[in-house]
This record gives sequence, structure tokens and C-alpha cells, in this order.
Amino acid sequence: MIKIGIVGGTGYTGVELLRLLATHPRAQVVQITSRAEAGRAVSELYGNLRGHFDLAFSEPDPAALAECDLVFFATPNGTAMQMAPGLLEAGTKVIDLAADFRLRDPAVWEQWYGMPHTCTAILEEAVYGLPELNREQIREARLVANPGCYPTAATLGFLPLIEGGLVDAATLVADCKSGVSGGGRGANIAMLMGEAGESFKAYAVSGHRHLPEIRQTLSLAADGPVGLTFTPHLVPMVRGIHATLYARSKGRIDDLQGRFEARYAAEPFVDVLPPGSHPETRSVRGVNHCRIAVHRPLDGDMLVVLSVIDNLTKGAAGQAVQNMNLMFGLDEAAGLNQVALLP
Amino acid sequence: MIKIGIVGGTGYTGVELLRLLATHPRAQVVQITSRAEAGRAVSELYGNLRGHFDLAFSEPDPAALAECDLVFFATPNGTAMQMAPGLLEAGTKVIDLAADFRLRDPAVWEQWYGMPHTCTAILEEAVYGLPELNREQIREARLVANPGCYPTAATLGFLPLIEGGLVDAATLVADCKSGVSGGGRGANIAMLMGEAGESFKAYAVSGHRHLPEIRQTLSLAADGPVGLTFTPHLVPMVRGIHATLYARSKGRIDDLQGRFEARYAAEPFVDVLPPGSHPETRSVRGVNHCRIAVHRPLDGDMLVVLSVIDNLTKGAAGQAVQNMNLMFGLDEAAGLNQVALLP
Amino acid sequence: MIKIGIVGGTGYTGVELLRLLATHPRAQVVQITSRAEAGRAVSELYGNLRGHFDLAFSEPDPAALAECDLVFFATPNGTAMQMAPGLLEAGTKVIDLAADFRLRDPAVWEQWYGMPHTCTAILEEAVYGLPELNREQIREARLVANPGCYPTAATLGFLPLIEGGLVDAATLVADCKSGVSGGGRGANIAMLMGEAGESFKAYAVSGHRHLPEIRQTLSLAADGPVGLTFTPHLVPMVRGIHATLYARSKGRIDDLQGRFEARYAAEPFVDVLPPGSHPETRSVRGVNHCRIAVHRPLDGDMLVVLSVIDNLTKGAAGQAVQNMNLMFGLDEAAGLNQVALLP
Amino acid sequence: MIKIGIVGGTGYTGVELLRLLATHPRAQVVQITSRAEAGRAVSELYGNLRGHFDLAFSEPDPAALAECDLVFFATPNGTAMQMAPGLLEAGTKVIDLAADFRLRDPAVWEQWYGMPHTCTAILEEAVYGLPELNREQIREARLVANPGCYPTAATLGFLPLIEGGLVDAATLVADCKSGVSGGGRGANIAMLMGEAGESFKAYAVSGHRHLPEIRQTLSLAADGPVGLTFTPHLVPMVRGIHATLYARSKGRIDDLQGRFEARYAAEPFVDVLPPGSHPETRSVRGVNHCRIAVHRPLDGDMLVVLSVIDNLTKGAAGQAVQNMNLMFGLDEAAGLNQVALLP
Repeated sequence: MIKIGIVGGTGYTGVELLRLLATHPRAQVVQITSRAEAGRAVSELYGNLRGHFDLAFSEPDPAALAECDLVFFATPNGTAMQMAPGLLEAGTKVIDLAADFRLRDPAVWEQWYGMPHTCTAILEEAVYGLPELNREQIREARLVANPGCYPTAATLGFLPLIEGGLVDAATLVADCKSGVSGGGRGANIAMLMGEAGESFKAYAVSGHRHLPEIRQTLSLAADGPVGLTFTPHLVPMVRGIHATLYARSKGRIDDLQGRFEARYAAEPFVDVLPPGSHPETRSVRGVNHCRIAVHRPLDGDMLVVLSVIDNLTKGAAGQAVQNMNLMFGLDEAAGLNQVALLP
Repeated sequence: MIKIGIVGGTGYTGVELLRLLATHPRAQVVQITSRAEAGRAVSELYGNLRGHFDLAFSEPDPAALAECDLVFFATPNGTAMQMAPGLLEAGTKVIDLAADFRLRDPAVWEQWYGMPHTCTAILEEAVYGLPELNREQIREARLVANPGCYPTAATLGFLPLIEGGLVDAATLVADCKSGVSGGGRGANIAMLMGEAGESFKAYAVSGHRHLPEIRQTLSLAADGPVGLTFTPHLVPMVRGIHATLYARSKGRIDDLQGRFEARYAAEPFVDVLPPGSHPETRSVRGVNHCRIAVHRPLDGDMLVVLSVIDNLTKGAAGQAVQNMNLMFGLDEAAGLNQVALLP
Repeated sequence: MIKIGIVGGTGYTGVELLRLLATHPRAQVVQITSRAEAGRAVSELYGNLRGHFDLAFSEPDPAALAECDLVFFATPNGTAMQMAPGLLEAGTKVIDLAADFRLRDPAVWEQWYGMPHTCTAILEEAVYGLPELNREQIREARLVANPGCYPTAATLGFLPLIEGGLVDAATLVADCKSGVSGGGRGANIAMLMGEAGESFKAYAVSGHRHLPEIRQTLSLAADGPVGLTFTPHLVPMVRGIHATLYARSKGRIDDLQGRFEARYAAEPFVDVLPPGSHPETRSVRGVNHCRIAVHRPLDGDMLVVLSVIDNLTKGAAGQAVQNMNLMFGLDEAAGLNQVALLP
Repeated sequence: MIKIGIVGGTGYTGVELLRLLATHPRAQVVQITSRAEAGRAVSELYGNLRGHFDLAFSEPDPAALAECDLVFFATPNGTAMQMAPGLLEAGTKVIDLAADFRLRDPAVWEQWYGMPHTCTAILEEAVYGLPELNREQIREARLVANPGCYPTAATLGFLPLIEGGLVDAATLVADCKSGVSGGGRGANIAMLMGEAGESFKAYAVSGHRHLPEIRQTLSLAADGPVGLTFTPHLVPMVRGIHATLYARSKGRIDDLQGRFEARYAAEPFVDVLPPGSHPETRSVRGVNHCRIAVHRPLDGDMLVVLSVIDNLTKGAAGQAVQNMNLMFGLDEAAGLNQVALLP
């Protein structure tokens, strides 16, 4: 069994990791840290884990973590970069579910995240953990930067268009909607059900941290600069992201549907729906799939791609487990064969 | 008191009309028809109306309706055009909350609504009931076509840009999100809470009936053709529409915020929020206001307008009452001074 | 106009007071205090109030408050008792929406609220502000203790049975359910939508502070001790309380329905539904009504009373306005004639 | 592999059966019938099943069904009793998820279900499929009546008290709350999100079909008559049942908590929480567990038991799979090892 440590396991990403790892055939969580909850049983904080874990939260201890084969960081931004170098040196692999290693340019990172990047030495080594793009590098990686939730949904939707050079890369629009669990489990008034329930709003329209991340990935895929407008919104539901993506075709595109299907034919976790489909977020609730539909309304030149994921699964913990499977030579889908909970 | 008849009062638009008219100082509902519920007290169907109305639903009777000063049609598409000519002839004014008189070109109407238009004679006389555009014509109108919910939110958001010729009218995008009450009160599996709850999806991406309506209004405002991509989505909440609108500026725009503020300075029901705002749908819950914010993310050339309304109020019954007030020379805001219910 | 001050206006009770007072014909809010938000416009914090209030939050200043005719306390428990004596002395009336003056016995209060009661001198003078019980005393009161939300719903449902001596007062059960706004607007993890959404639970089963309050009122009505089991639950919705009340009849009760109707025949805000009814919380959303139905399932001796209110309106701010109207000799329903928002 | 047929697979119970059987190690669904959807792929109706089932709905065909080892009926009441005799005769086992075989007395059944019972011949043979009560009979059964959702939650909560003779069996109260999926997937106005969203209500207070079912089971356990008041409520969420159960203790009960723990110590799917707990419905979302807490508020003689299940899993399809496992000599938990989806 692969010995797993989780740093910062009290948030929604942490409990989702525990849910998935509880039934994983080859991984065993041996340590989960939380300063605030040290000593408390994880199953006391999260009632769904009763009967699945005997583990209690512990104080983070670098030496103990270094005995793990792999450590997941489910921490606020800025934490993983402090501990990752020591773990790598000790031979422990690292997957960071926060943003510390997502942007290749530390100056851009510092601009968007508002703090100095203290770990640029290993930044270059970090692999951006989107298996649909970087599968082979992930297999060899010691350090994986797990993608953000919005970037996963938006990037997978845009990729077939961008890679094929089919659309004007300068005028992309990603209108994205997320359930409230994307906002985390912090004591935040804006995320109270009394505030977020029965209402809908956009936020961070002037600029969200996931914008440079999406742009970076798409620019690499386009092999050139990309112009993107990204608008996140908060949906009064718990889980799920729906990305509605707009791109202008450069000309007539033959077999648009077929191109999407071909791009993802071998992908275990990307599902291209039949023409005319409208994927629902609930169709991926609790599973690692991204479901995509592509439309060309009224046969015009604006293409509309609909892409849904569960923000906590393919958008965070599920993708992290997929990356772990790749890094350790396991079946890529190990522990990820759940069926989405519907209704 | 103005004597009011309502045809088809069992749906959500009907009950919202009753809610607003219950406290209107100058209007009295004297008749409300429903074939299915004839004989039943309206307060039995809608518990919130107990103590406010003694009225019972009745069979629709043209002669009785013709005794009203004004008849609202809160019916499925295709009903108002059968009864409106007779009522107008009898001197009764008509506001249709359905779509029968919204599109000026009957051929376009027939294409989108899938039935013949049987009342083209009076189509030309119908005034599109968006007071922010057509206030003076509404004052004189006998027949008002009350705008659709999405068109109200999208049009009010785009207008300052289109009227000013500030943006490329060929590449507009309206990404719109609606609560489930927009889907009506029919027995429809897709609108069950078991289907629509805790999930989010787009629908009708290939073409929605509100697209030609928005396009028609914006084309008139632009004095030229308009290219629009319109994507409606279903939000797991009861009330509210959020339109996220994208338009490319043609060049540098001086004082974008000021132009929005100036356009709506005299409007009682359009509220332009301060720069950087993100309007929430709950800020207009149950009221006739549209709240709008305009953004220019990262100082680029893509403008983003956020526009929220209550789909049942400014998006239907509230706007109908506003139109009624204009048609009868009342204070435009009579009966519409509620404060939005928040939280 | 009555000059109104509100102390602690940033919570849900505060914004609900502002919503109701915005359209009140005889009251004017001249001051609203909040240490945390001092200087900020109320309409900035609460978008629904834009256009209704120019007021900004201010630091609480006893001298300024003493110039008001009436001060509402929408503060945490323990605050009103510090400021109320000074205000009363200055001739300003006080309505406390918190619990400081609800329990007549300071020892019981201290046991349940976990702090010393520092204002027992005026405790005796305080009138429990349930107009359906204490209307005449409220008219004369300088200091009103506005009832809790659960106590309002439960007490109004039990009263006709208890006052009539119709049931065994020793074995009452109140199974109550509340929307999340009852939990306030504090930054509390348990009230995040990620925690409270799409889930249902009981809380405080071992004993909730509203238990002694309900018991006190019913004991006075019964003129003897009352045995009550009270179980509160959290419903994944924003507003509304539903109390399901169980009481064993002592014997055959003639005309159970008629007794409820007679008890509340003259009450403007209590609505006894027809036999067989099941009131919905949405039928009172945003209004000051309590709707009640009484059942005797299978003609047995267990009676079931269903009682619904809006926890923020009749359960807090609406009842406070009703009390204000009584204290100042106004029409009891002034400013409270809204129709519930449905759907 | 056990060959499985499902009759009536388009409802929520059907899709939940498919979700659970998709990953069951020993069962294979070979047939799923629906008159309305015959010919349509199940994964087209239920997007979450894409990639898990190639199956299409077929017309119900008794001969084809008789080739299965087991047929589940996920049909309206009255259907299973028509087809069950033929299947049993052909050697196919049957689990009915509807109510046809739940009540032992056909007269009582007919009174509550409003139709004649046409299959009394095999009624006596049917085993009530609550493994915690009837495990050994289920192992031997050909025909299992899968319990109702409310009865499962309420019965498991009451059993330790009733079997021990600890409480007054004449005055039991079960105040139960269910998510909307319990109302099924029929086109029913009352279940629209516009009707059931953001509201809470009781229903069927005068008598619900699950009342005689709970009473029958508890009477057998008590070996005597039981008096029960049962009040179901509709919660604005999709999944989950919370039963709040009230019973008066006959006298001092030693180690109440220990009695619950002992009763369920060997049960794989009943989890007794530590003293003072408040189980949330989300802690069992999508899993076959019942989580229970027992309270004695203020040390009085009224006991309060809190019992939560997922209405579609332990309350329907999960329990049916548990019964299947027992009937075919498999590990009782086969295919039921999921972790609840939280948040």
C-alpha cells in the first residue's frame, strides 16, 4: 500500500480526499494534519467517515510526513511551498492542491497571489497535473501542481478548439458557475446559507486568480498568446462547476463534434456528450468525470462549449488521486470508479 | 379604481400580479379566470393571498372581461391573440404577458413559436412594453406586449452600450441564468425539485425564443443588425435572473460608468451600482428593479455588464403593473414601492 | 413621525426592521448603530435598501439614541440590558429583540444564558411582547421584550388548547423547524451553505434557550406547571419556521376547529386555516402572519397543531413593529400590510 | 453473476438501484423495463450512468424476466402483485420496493391503498425486508417486501425502546422529514421546485400509508398494540430522511445509550452515535447506513431518538441490495461500501 499523508485535512478538499482514499485499493492514509483540530478523530469532524477511518488529526510534523510515500497539501496558498522541498529531498512525492506551483512565472504568481514565492527553485520541476495534457510528465513527476477547479473545467472545454487552431484565441470568454463548496469551509459571512442561498451573483469580475492559470495553459496549447475574459459566479448549490465557453470559429469547421470526440477518445474521465446535449452538474456529482457538449447555435460562427465537473472531485481531490495513480504506476482509474449521485 | 381582469391566473405570473395588485392604491381585480380552477377561491390555491382577495377563479367570459378597464393575459402563448381584438373593440385595454405581440414580424414569430399568428391586424399597434425605451408610446397604447424576462434583463444591460454605438454589435454574448419559476407552474418533470435542485445546466443553447426578441430590440436601438449569442441556464433557486453580458468596445470609452448612470438617471426602476459592484439576484427579490453593474476587466476591450431582475416582477408582473400605471396616467411607481426581501 | 433608533443593525433582524420601516407611514429611522460598520451606508451592506435609506451606520451613542422616541435592540443577548435603563430614564421607549427581558426570573435567565443579569431592576416592568396575549399591557409599556421566533410559533399554536384546559399540559411536544436565517449573520462554520445546504438535522436537543421561554408563557396561560419537550431543527432554506405541536386531549373536545377560530377571530395576524390544511412556510414569507391548522389524526386523542411564521417577521422584526404600533397608539397593522412572497 | 431484472426503472428508486448495481461485484443487470421509455438507453435518461450501462429500457416481458435470478419491482403500488406469482413459479426471486407485500392483513392494505389486493395467496410468504429484524427469514425468502422509507428510519429508531419494553407504547410520536425525492419522479405540481423550494410543510397529517406499516412492525416487536402519531414533512432538499421520535420512558432506564449500542453492535448498517450527537442527513447521503442518536432532554421521562437515512438508499434501493445479498448468500455489504457524499 502507498503510504499517504494529508496536510491540512479539515477543509472540503481534505474530506473529499478522505472519501476517495477510503475505498482506494492501493493507498492508505497514515497521517492527516491540522493544527486547529489536532487530537480529534476525523470521523468526529466528518460524520460520513465514521467506520472508514480510525485516524485522528495530528500536528504537522515534517519528519513524520517524510515517512509517507506521498503527501497531499490541502492547505491555503503559501503553505506547500514551505514544506515541499524538504519532503522531496526525503524522497516523498508531493501533490499540491493549492496554487503554489501552478504558475510557471513567479512574478505573475506574486502579482495574483499577493505574497512572495519562496520556493522558485523547485517551481520549474513542478508538473501541472492535468492528465489530459501532461500524462507522461505526471508519471515521472515528484511534484505535481494540481489544477484549480475553474481551470480544469474551462481548459478541458477549450482544448480541442485551441489545439486545433480552430478559433480566434484572442477573444475567448469563459462564463463559469460554481457551487459554494468551491469557497471552502472557512468562517466567511459571504458563504453563509443566509447570504448565498436562493440568490445568484458574479464575483471577482475585475480579475480572478484562476484567470492567469487558464491563460497559461491555453497559451501553451495555442503556442501563442491568448485573450480570455473569465467571469466566475456563485450558484446556490453545494457542489458542481458549469463552464459556458464562447469562442469564434476562424472559418468553417468540419465535424466539430468529431474533433471533440477524437481528442478525448482515450480519456477515461472526459465524456463528450452527443450533439445537442446540455450536461447537468449533477451528472458528475462525486465523480472524477468532466462531461462536455459543443454547440454552434444557429449555425453561426460563435461556438459554445458546455463543460461540467464536480469542483471537489475532478476539480480537486479526484484529479489529485488520478495524478497519484499516474505517479505510482497504478491503474489511472483506481479508486475512482464511483457512479455520480443522481438525483 | 381601475377595474382589472386577469386571464389565466393560476401560474406564477398570475399569482405575482395578484400579490402586486392586492396593495395597489388605484387598481381592483374584479375577475380572474381559469378553466381548470373555476369556482375555487384564489386564496385556496395561493395561501399567501388569504385575507387579501375574496375572489374565486371563473370561466373566461369575453363579455364579462369587456367590462374591465384593463385585462392582463397571463396565459400560454397563442391565447391573447384570440381574445385581444374583441376586448380592444369594446374599449378594454390589454397587456399580454405572453409572447403573442412581442415580435413585429409575424413570420419570425411563427418560426420561433411554431404556430400561425392569427392576429396580425393589431400586431402593428402593439407597443413593446419596456418603459425605459418606449415610455411615451406605452402611455398612449391600447395593447402592450409585456417583454420576456430574459429580454428585460439583457436589453437593459446592453442598451447604454448599443445606443451609444460603443461596442461591436455583431459579437454580443448574453449568458443568462434564471431561477426555476421562469419555467412556470406546469406539471413538468424537468422542473421537479428532484431534477432541478442541487444542479445547474444550460438549456436551449441551439436557440431560445427570447433570442429574436432581444435581437429585435437591440437592432432597433442600434439602428442596424445585431449579432447575439444567447445562452439560458437554470439555477437551483426559485426567483431571479442574472444576465452576464459581453461586448467588445470599439475603442477607448470615456466614462463608461457615467454613461450608464446618465442613461438611467431618470428611471425609477433601473439602478446603476457603483463601479466594481456585483449585483445579487436577492437584492431585487420581489421588486420591480433592475440593478446593473458595468466592468471592464483588466482594462481590456471586453466589457462585462451584470444585470439582475426578479423574473416574476420586473421580468413579468411588476413590469406589467408599471405599464398599466403608464397607460392609465398614474404614478409610474404606484403599487411598486416594496423593498426587496433580503435575506 | 416617530423617531426610531436601531442598535446593532447589521444582522438579519436589523435588515428586516429596515425593510419594514422603509415603507411604514408613521416611523422614521434616524439612527442605526454598528461598531463594526460605522461610517458605511446601510444600502452598501444591504443592496435591497438602495433607494430607501440614505442612512449610514454610526457608533452607538447613548445621548443620540436618547433623542429617539423608540429604540430597537437587534443586538446579541446582554447588550440591551446595559443601555435600556438610561434610555427609559430619558423618556425613550425600548423594544429588545434579543432575550434580555424575556424571562421573568433572573435566576432562570442566568442559568440558560450563562451570564449574570445586570438589569433586574426594570425586568419586572418589561412586557412580553406577544400582542395576542398581552395587547393592553403592550400599549402602556415603556419596555417590551420581543418574543423569540420559536416561542412565537409554538405559543400561538398551543394557546387555544392550553387556555381552554383541553389537553394534558404535562406532556407537550414542540417539534420545530427553522430556516438558517434564524442562526444569524455571524461568521459561523455550521451556517455555511456548504454545511447547512442539502441537509437536515436537529440541534440542541438536550435543551435550547427558547424552552424556558415557551414554558413560562404556557404556564401562565395554563395557570400551572407545564411539561414540554422542545426539539429545534435546521431546514436548508433561508426563512421560515414550522412548529409541529403535539398535545393529548383530556377528553372529547367539541368543535376543536371552532375553538381555534374563536380564539383568534379578532387577531389581525393570526390566520386559522380550514380543517385539513397544511400551512407552508412560504405562505408567510416576509409577512407578519402566523398561519395555523389543527388536526386530530384518525380521531385519536393526540392533537397535532401546525403553526408557521416567518422567523424574521412575526418571529422578530415584524412583531417588533406590531408592538411599536401598539405602544404609540397607531393602527396595529401599520406598515405590515405586505402580501407574502410566493413562490 | 446473479442475473437481475428491474421492472419500472425510470423513477428515482430505479436509478438508485442502477447506481448501486453498477459497481456490485456479483450482480449484473440484464433487463430493465419501462413502457414509456422502451428503446431508450438508460444512460440517455440518466446522465450519471454513461459509461456504466449499455442497457436500454425494454417493454416488460414476463418470459424474459423469468430468466433472471432476481427481479426488483420499482413500480407504483399494485404492479408487483400482478407479476410476482408467475416469477416465483418460474424460480425467480422477487424484491418489491413498492408496498404490495408490506402489510400482512389484506383488509388493512386495501383500506390504506384504496384498491383490492389481488395476490393474497403469496402475501403470507412475503418477508418484511428489514434485515435488522428479519435477517434469517430474508436469507430463505423467495419474496421480500422492501420496507418504506419512513418506516425504515422510524422503526430502527424505536426498536431498542420497544423491544426492551422501556417506553409507553401507546403514545409514540414520529415526526419525520423527507427530501423531495421521496415524492418520486412523476409530473406532479406539488413537487416542482417552484412549489417545494425554499419552503417547508407537513402533509398527510390525517393519515399516511406508512403509519400502518410502522405500527405493524412495532406491534410485533412489542408483542402488543402500539399507539403511534406519525407526521411526515417535506424538506426543500433532494435526499434524506430525518425521523425525530418521541417516547415516554416507563421508569428509570439504566444505560440508555448502552442499550442502543448493544442492540445494533453487530449490524453493518446501523450506527449508534455517541451521546449528545445530532446526526445530519448528509452523513448518510448515498449510503446504506442509518445513523441514530438517543437523548433524554433535561433528564426527564420523554426520550428523543434522532434517526437519519438516505430515503433512496437505506430507505429503498440500498436496503433492497442488502436484502438481495442475504437472499443469495453473499456478503451482506457487497456493493454497499460507499462513503457518504459530504459536503
